Amino acid sequence: MVNALQRIDNKVRLLRQTLLPTEVHYDDLDDYRDIIAAIKCLDVRGAPAIGIAAAYGLALAAQRNNVAGIDDLPPFADEIRNARPTAVNLSWAVDRVTTRLRQEKPQGHQAIVALLWNEAETIHAEDRHLCRAMGEHGAALIPDKARVLTHCNTGALATGGIGTAFGVIYTAHQQGKQILVYADETRPLLQGARLTAWELMQAGIPCRLICDSTAAMLMRQGGVDLAIVGADRITTQGDVANKIGTYSVAVACHHHDIPFYVAAPYSTFDESLVNGDEIPIEERHADEITRGFGRLTAPEGVEVYAPAFDITPAELVSAYITDQGIRPGKRHRS
Amino acid sequence: MVNALQRIDNKVRLLRQTLLPTEVHYDDLDDYRDIIAAIKCLDVRGAPAIGIAAAYGLALAAQRNNVAGIDDLPPFADEIRNARPTAVNLSWAVDRVTTRLRQEKPQGHQAIVALLWNEAETIHAEDRHLCRAMGEHGAALIPDKARVLTHCNTGALATGGIGTAFGVIYTAHQQGKQILVYADETRPLLQGARLTAWELMQAGIPCRLICDSTAAMLMRQGGVDLAIVGADRITTQGDVANKIGTYSVAVACHHHDIPFYVAAPYSTFDESLVNGDEIPIEERHADEITRGFGRLTAPEGVEVYAPAFDITPAELVSAYITDQGIRPGKRHRS
Repeated sequence: MVNALQRIDNKVRLLRQTLLPTEVHYDDLDDYRDIIAAIKCLDVRGAPAIGIAAAYGLALAAQRNNVAGIDDLPPFADEIRNARPTAVNLSWAVDRVTTRLRQEKPQGHQAIVALLWNEAETIHAEDRHLCRAMGEHGAALIPDKARVLTHCNTGALATGGIGTAFGVIYTAHQQGKQILVYADETRPLLQGARLTAWELMQAGIPCRLICDSTAAMLMRQGGVDLAIVGADRITTQGDVANKIGTYSVAVACHHHDIPFYVAAPYSTFDESLVNGDEIPIEERHADEITRGFGRLTAPEGVEVYAPAFDITPAELVSAYITDQGIRPGKRHRS
Repeated sequence: MVNALQRIDNKVRLLRQTLLPTEVHYDDLDDYRDIIAAIKCLDVRGAPAIGIAAAYGLALAAQRNNVAGIDDLPPFADEIRNARPTAVNLSWAVDRVTTRLRQEKPQGHQAIVALLWNEAETIHAEDRHLCRAMGEHGAALIPDKARVLTHCNTGALATGGIGTAFGVIYTAHQQGKQILVYADETRPLLQGARLTAWELMQAGIPCRLICDSTAAMLMRQGGVDLAIVGADRITTQGDVANKIGTYSVAVACHHHDIPFYVAAPYSTFDESLVNGDEIPIEERHADEITRGFGRLTAPEGVEVYAPAFDITPAELVSAYITDQGIRPGKRHRS
């Protein structure tokens, strides 16, 4: 499994995911602002991975900016927390780190920096275990010979381990099940084409790449047994924010009576929100749609609506695959 | 309105649509094989437009290949008919031209060529009228201030006139209705982004470009009042072959109780087929998905499923807008 990011000495080695799959390039970063920039430009993305990146970012910020007391940290913490709005893992990681700081009250620069590195690595290692747990629980839902549809990227590139939805597929494959994965290319930034197809091929899992708009037709043809996706935030009533296009997949699954599963660790559940419509949806720059491939593919100046995420209401979710087990969704109960 | 193609003396002036919107380039063609190549590579596309191109292609074939009797024509006719499989308009145009030849029995090369040019121009002019008629009938279905979703391109670039679905939108706009059009970008070849957005902006019709996968979310947000698309072939029971992604829009419209209209002239209705699943679906080359923008955006060698069209069953169509009026669909009756 590839590492989206890892600590190397007192730096963070980060894989520039925007260059994949044609270039595998790592940078060693020692400035938290480079971490924020990488989160913003999607060089590191995926809710669990940006949570981990946030924790590492805090360690870098403290290390380089002479943070000598806990009260010096909030400006950096806020800057990191606000790098992107939709995934709750950013806030979750920052809150977790600062809570531990407040509890343990390390004294002086070195002690603070050491604790921040330690907590970041703890979060990273924990996510590896969460992925394994989701994989084990979720694999039970994947029949042998299943044709599985997935959207966006939820693998090692999006997490600290084998992935969320991808980890479930990977675990079922490791168990000897013959699986065929249809990967939605996932416009506009093609995380499915660039990242998921790449990870599937590296893992030796048979896959076919499709345009997002082909998924419904494939379901009508009887070509999909189940869909499984990740999540950026899940509310207490079970509404799911995830990559734009997820809702379209959920609607099509509902129409064709195909199970629709969401895999996410506890860190993605936001206990402060009930209704998915309260989740802030990031809008990205029009260029990601009109010049996403280094070439203008729409008229100059065209107005663009470019939400990066959508909300799938709980009613369309068959089950949630979490690190603690399978939680039935509202579609399941109907 | 731009001309996708037109007769200039004894040549066919064809707009290279694959270069739009960054380049507006015309070529004057005098070899029918260049017409076939343009149909195959989508320099001319859209069911009505490729029907017209087929008729012009036959005239060019006869003109340059010393066709001196009606029996000399079938090899050229078959080659043109088979340029692409899904749209019925190719066959329809070839059949119409050859039927007239058999009826009028022109004698000698010059008479045959003259009749072929005449019939091609007649088909072209007729399509202009069909578009106007669809526009008038269909505009009655578009309320003032309607937010209209459309998929792929169905305008002047796809027809001999103002378009099918686009023509309906255009006519409603001309009637003074305030309309906002959401144009699906239409992967893989981005006819929505490159062509529809361009035509809408040229016509001064307010529009927003979205990724195909955003349409369902937009409907859930209450942002779409109706969807209207064209068709490549419609069976006697009302199943619709159209650009890949159309079915996904129809399913989402059904889920959100939003009208879904199909606009097509009589030449798109195939009286020989009942069930849409009998329509041959063209598969395009993987490169159109993995290298569609001149840059590799997926792993080398990835398997790709690239259907160019899908089938929307009659049960999901609210109404058909034809040149002869509005025909209720099966969703309408339920």
